[in-house]
Amino acid sequence: MTTTAPPAARWLTDDQQRAWRAYLLGSAVLSERLDAQLRDHGLDLAEYEILVTLSESADRQLRMAELADAVHQSRSRLTHTVTRMEKRGLIERSTCPVDRRGVWANLTDAGYRLLEDAAPSHVECVRRNFVDAVDDADLEAVGRVFRAVVATSQD
Amino acid sequence: MTTTAPPAARWLTDDQQRAWRAYLLGSAVLSERLDAQLRDHGLDLAEYEILVTLSESADRQLRMAELADAVHQSRSRLTHTVTRMEKRGLIERSTCPVDRRGVWANLTDAGYRLLEDAAPSHVECVRRNFVDAVDDADLEAVGRVFRAVVATSQD
Repeated sequence: MTTTAPPAARWLTDDQQRAWRAYLLGSAVLSERLDAQLRDHGLDLAEYEILVTLSESADRQLRMAELADAVHQSRSRLTHTVTRMEKRGLIERSTCPVDRRGVWANLTDAGYRLLEDAAPSHVECVRRNFVDAVDDADLEAVGRVFRAVVATSQD
Repeated sequence: MTTTAPPAARWLTDDQQRAWRAYLLGSAVLSERLDAQLRDHGLDLAEYEILVTLSESADRQLRMAELADAVHQSRSRLTHTVTRMEKRGLIERSTCPVDRRGVWANLTDAGYRLLEDAAPSHVECVRRNFVDAVDDADLEAVGRVFRAVVATSQD
């Protein structure tokens, strides 16, 4: 029987570390600025994403499970957020009497109006802090990188 | 007196929107995977960043205000996190008897050992899901983009 030493850690190179840390800091800064701006409309970024996703869905509604996938929130966190938004009249939950598979989340007219109110200044904030701050080729690279992240096999 | 219509919203182009949404989804996916991996060590990414930052500071300690800036957390959130970590014996807080400006956070030996234990598999997770999943030029672009985000004037 032979014993094998555990593989040495493959530390990041200096260049990789610099890029990784810039991302960690920059994404935290960006989230904070977007949240701060949306607070003017009583929203945070997660709630805004839920409004956008429902507004683009057929009949402005989605099953909770589909909504969780679309906005990449855990079911428990999404339930918590949607409950809060339902109390404010932005979303209604319902169970279809014919198809009982799961609960649906429906965007209300008030929810749609709030999205319409919030969208222009939110998009302006995304532009100022992100899209307009970088050149087109780098923006394209960001898209490529994060699509690759999502596609990474977890086996 | 003239009245001026509010400026029309400058919506994102399709290409910009694609990149922005890839980032929103990809960064959520990435955070979730890193948190899930660090959970094996009883940590989340925010706590890991605190351990790293203190481990690299002189005497493994920093003022709470400096630590908040370094890991880009609000003071209230950091206080909450550090309190939790202090209860686990990973960090100690102290006030310097000579220089009373603020509270210091000190990394304990137990905190340093936990970081040493957690680091190799965390870095492997960062490699698998991010660094090794993209090519060098795109990684460099990500660094450039998020440095530009941080540098964006908020005036």
